[in-house]
Amino acid sequence: MTAEQPSILIVGAGAIGALYGSALARQGAQVSVVCRSDYEAVSRHGYSIRSSLLGDHIFRPHAVLRDVAACTAPPDYLFLTVKVLPDLDRVALIRPAVGPQTVIVLIENGIDIEGAILEAFPNNELLSALAFVQVSRAGRGEIIHHALGSLAMGCYPSGITPAAERLAGLFEASKLGCKLTDNVVSGRWQKAVWNTVFNPISVLGGVFDTEMMLRTEENVALMRTAMHEVCAAAAAAGHPMHPKLVDRMIADTRALPGYKTSMALDYENGRPMEIEAILGNVVRSGRQNEVAMPVLETIYALAQMAAGKQTTSR
Amino acid sequence: MTAEQPSILIVGAGAIGALYGSALARQGAQVSVVCRSDYEAVSRHGYSIRSSLLGDHIFRPHAVLRDVAACTAPPDYLFLTVKVLPDLDRVALIRPAVGPQTVIVLIENGIDIEGAILEAFPNNELLSALAFVQVSRAGRGEIIHHALGSLAMGCYPSGITPAAERLAGLFEASKLGCKLTDNVVSGRWQKAVWNTVFNPISVLGGVFDTEMMLRTEENVALMRTAMHEVCAAAAAAGHPMHPKLVDRMIADTRALPGYKTSMALDYENGRPMEIEAILGNVVRSGRQNEVAMPVLETIYALAQMAAGKQTTSR
Repeated sequence: MTAEQPSILIVGAGAIGALYGSALARQGAQVSVVCRSDYEAVSRHGYSIRSSLLGDHIFRPHAVLRDVAACTAPPDYLFLTVKVLPDLDRVALIRPAVGPQTVIVLIENGIDIEGAILEAFPNNELLSALAFVQVSRAGRGEIIHHALGSLAMGCYPSGITPAAERLAGLFEASKLGCKLTDNVVSGRWQKAVWNTVFNPISVLGGVFDTEMMLRTEENVALMRTAMHEVCAAAAAAGHPMHPKLVDRMIADTRALPGYKTSMALDYENGRPMEIEAILGNVVRSGRQNEVAMPVLETIYALAQMAAGKQTTSR
Repeated sequence: MTAEQPSILIVGAGAIGALYGSALARQGAQVSVVCRSDYEAVSRHGYSIRSSLLGDHIFRPHAVLRDVAACTAPPDYLFLTVKVLPDLDRVALIRPAVGPQTVIVLIENGIDIEGAILEAFPNNELLSALAFVQVSRAGRGEIIHHALGSLAMGCYPSGITPAAERLAGLFEASKLGCKLTDNVVSGRWQKAVWNTVFNPISVLGGVFDTEMMLRTEENVALMRTAMHEVCAAAAAAGHPMHPKLVDRMIADTRALPGYKTSMALDYENGRPMEIEAILGNVVRSGRQNEVAMPVLETIYALAQMAAGKQTTSR
């Protein structure tokens, strides 16, 4: 790794990958991207990024690759920003670009999404990151950064290393922000308390936004019960949540205008949903620890049915 | 009540009302109907009924009324075949046509749907009936009778009377069939074991048919758990179900080609759903008896959200 300009390869450069890649490129990093569907547009014009925080700008990656195998030298950091889906082999996807010194960085949703990567690359440093950001793809190579941007990042399964500090420093300098944590798994569970509940419920009953999900006291009671089930699963997995977390999350969500979850957007647009990473893995962790999660179990079964219907009708 | 030709008024003469009314008219009963939306078509042309069981035929009611108040003489039997919805006052709806001798017949879905009628008309005989039939409205005054047709009927809250026997005799003669029961509430609970589960689940996640709901072992496990919760609520209400009922219902449903529930059809067509009669009343009964029904509670909360969304977007 060079001292001034780390090389970074973004694998799965959709909205998230493009935004964080651009932010790092503007800090001097040499950022290349692997992008398939938008390859033509991005290799010609780069990414057009609209962002009130960073300013509207064009991001021209150092190299735009059609696939990972086209990577000629292993990067210092490899960012994996694809969705975590059962039928996507993420290990095989990144293997061609992982060198002995490559730090692998996962910016992905869900619980227990690091295990397969750690197992496949036991000698590489593995950073796990949670993105608190609203960003979407408006067209080929067109990214809209709506709000927020901060990452929570740490080594997996725990700790903070110089490579993590270096990367966090670049994010901090970029204005997006990055909070290092020596217990990123706990951070994942905390995010899951919201994600695991709001995402699938937003899909059941025909795409709700957050405001609809909290409209009546009975609705709120359901959300709250389900969130407390996630807290129980988290505690049983060794990550006790703050007793006021659920109340705080409900209040915070209510304070924002209604918006659609990532899963609702995926469902509406016929894209695969991260049901296993976001919900299934939480349920499986809870089951393993014999936590009673009747609401989550029901929602999980219904969400699988919704996904099955989606697959059938596509 | 005359000996040979009872007069019958059908209130809410949609598909169900038209089919059963027609069958009785063909047995010599004097059948009038109250129908609002199809009034013009029905008063001019009668109902066109396509039925392989009864034969395709036209049913011309004795009288076609725009509303119940237009009824000049109380009928021997008043059939109420409207959906049971919280914002529909069924008592007020039928009151103008209920005479001292009128037998009130409910052919409606759900649990605990008789109480309000009994309370309002304590001196009238009240029959409660369950229709096992597939019938739908294809257009103004156009009814398609797809399959089945049998009723299960009894006095509410229990027993069998001569008026019930007479009516059952007419239904039997009509080929649709009618099984008298001295415990119709138990029959309602039995039907609820299927209805309470398949109906709401069919609308969560985007309109499933029965085949989709039973596609995987995990799906079946959900349906089964929910159905056993209904059985527990039924038992606690004094109506124990046969231990093999759930298995038998699952097997029977699997043996049929996939079809959409009435609630799925309502949801798809933006019509109000009978969530309270079919699901809410079961949940309330279970709660009253302190039955644990976590799956039903979750489904109920989600179904209310779906109905709320439906209302909002109409």
